[in-house]
Amino acid sequence: MSALPHVAWVDRALEPELRALVDGRAKPPGSLGRIEALAIQLGLIAGHTRPRADRTLLLVFAGDHGFAAAGASSYPPQVTETMVRLLLAGGATANAFARAVGAQVRVVDAGVAADLAPNPLLIEAKVRKGTRDASREPALTAAEVDEALVSGARIAGEAAADGYDLLAIGEMGIGNSAAAALLLHRLCPAPLADCIGAGAGQDAAGLSRKAALLRLAAARAPASADPREALAQFGGCEITMMAGAILGAAASRRPVLVDGFIAGAAALAAIRLEPAARDYCVFAHRSAERGHAVMLERLEAEPLLDLSMRLGEGTGALLAAPLVRAAAGLLSEVASLEDVLAGWI
Amino acid sequence: MSALPHVAWVDRALEPELRALVDGRAKPPGSLGRIEALAIQLGLIAGHTRPRADRTLLLVFAGDHGFAAAGASSYPPQVTETMVRLLLAGGATANAFARAVGAQVRVVDAGVAADLAPNPLLIEAKVRKGTRDASREPALTAAEVDEALVSGARIAGEAAADGYDLLAIGEMGIGNSAAAALLLHRLCPAPLADCIGAGAGQDAAGLSRKAALLRLAAARAPASADPREALAQFGGCEITMMAGAILGAAASRRPVLVDGFIAGAAALAAIRLEPAARDYCVFAHRSAERGHAVMLERLEAEPLLDLSMRLGEGTGALLAAPLVRAAAGLLSEVASLEDVLAGWI
Repeated sequence: MSALPHVAWVDRALEPELRALVDGRAKPPGSLGRIEALAIQLGLIAGHTRPRADRTLLLVFAGDHGFAAAGASSYPPQVTETMVRLLLAGGATANAFARAVGAQVRVVDAGVAADLAPNPLLIEAKVRKGTRDASREPALTAAEVDEALVSGARIAGEAAADGYDLLAIGEMGIGNSAAAALLLHRLCPAPLADCIGAGAGQDAAGLSRKAALLRLAAARAPASADPREALAQFGGCEITMMAGAILGAAASRRPVLVDGFIAGAAALAAIRLEPAARDYCVFAHRSAERGHAVMLERLEAEPLLDLSMRLGEGTGALLAAPLVRAAAGLLSEVASLEDVLAGWI
Repeated sequence: MSALPHVAWVDRALEPELRALVDGRAKPPGSLGRIEALAIQLGLIAGHTRPRADRTLLLVFAGDHGFAAAGASSYPPQVTETMVRLLLAGGATANAFARAVGAQVRVVDAGVAADLAPNPLLIEAKVRKGTRDASREPALTAAEVDEALVSGARIAGEAAADGYDLLAIGEMGIGNSAAAALLLHRLCPAPLADCIGAGAGQDAAGLSRKAALLRLAAARAPASADPREALAQFGGCEITMMAGAILGAAASRRPVLVDGFIAGAAALAAIRLEPAARDYCVFAHRSAERGHAVMLERLEAEPLLDLSMRLGEGTGALLAAPLVRAAAGLLSEVASLEDVLAGWI
């Protein structure tokens, strides 16, 4: 067993005070809808009434999947490395979106099947060069799962220590919507067919190949809803490390913006490992990927955005970051109705 | 007749080139959903393939309404002035949200029923100290409508000349959801009952008073769908000036983020005046105000955000600004798939 940091339950005793503060701002009560609920969540996460979300870091966890070449993806596995290099060069969509919202980006090599040159934006935490083919054998060993979880928690904890007050979690990994589908299937649990989608862009024939491969993997692996077991069977170094990062962020009392379907699978695993982590998660957007609806329903999560996106790289998480910042500002920057009515402003 | 600037139709001949550019970025085709459509809209507005949305200005148009004290609002009319002072002091929700998204804020005195002290953040353009009571007589004269439209267009044009490449339009005015309901009723046209909502927070009895007042106003005024006539009858100096600002922004080829229900009524009037203005409007959020659904349907508009907000002040427009910036970045900052595949990156 690994030494994962302790995730404390948020203290709901603070909720009435936060609700009163939100209601007491100079605006009609309830008029900010979901931003008000988000402000209260941020206060509960911080454990006080002045939460901040000024400095946002996107961590893009990258890893390869043993069954990618076998039909789990419509893209060749080498695209993972290519896209990691593009992210490090600043030319990927996530880089442009990060600039648009004032966030920083770091790429975490969780398990890319290639040697990556050192780069100031790259965090080296490779567990192995790609997972084993989950349709034939467990993708990761128990020790590899532990290593990935602990590395993720450490990386998130270091980001919190560096002063980032909002962590966004995204990924890059050819084949990882297939791994996420299997995790969803086991951890919800939900029928496998409801969990499989087109990913980065399978056509009908490709989707059929992907489904056949995933049925093989599901039939091979013991039917268990244990999160470590599911992560070992179906893996994703990057998915497992994201789960660890969510736990690490929660342990540091930082809100975590969970991107889409694949980051959501990591959140599901993190929450199954530590149910207290649920309240630290802010679900950023509703992905167009088929299984995301099932996942969100089971997590009782209503994402902030619904823009028919399905890119990954944390792009959805980035677009939701300003909403989190605004919600924090509602508590800490907006005048009280009382002060306004008394003519003090 | 006033000298409003000419709004050119966007040139749809550019659309295939923009679509090809979006599809050719280093990402699966279609994977950014509505952000891709937004990027194409921004290109069409700019008339080229490198639109920017770096500098955002929120213009909050403020004005009072003659029928506010008669039951059109649950708040006393003096709240308009109070909230304008709070906006100028930086303590309103719009100020906090503007900081969260990196936007500037200016308040436009379109028709506040009080003398406002000069302030660097205040643009003085008062048409009159509040409108006349629209339940008894026309809220504005034809000359006042013209003045408000021209002032709005001028203010937006000056903002564009100052280098703002994205204009967000919001408002503050006790009673203005009532005026917006009447405009919607006439300009759609739509049944009055479908247009009336709780505004800043009417209870059942208040809503009934508001509806009775609006029925009086609708019965009094000639049944005309002419936008200048409707603006004169039901007014809103701030609503009329917002309509002018939308025309001015469009004439300057700038995208306009339209906030919620009341800014939406201004957009409706602007589009009835100049149908070409429609393509310059980016509808920011779906308001919780009842009439907004009808309005958006008639405008065939699907807003970017749906957060159950109904505050006004341009708060919804501000939260959508980073999405517009991200869409512009998709065109101008993300590498092409071709370059990536060729190994040039």
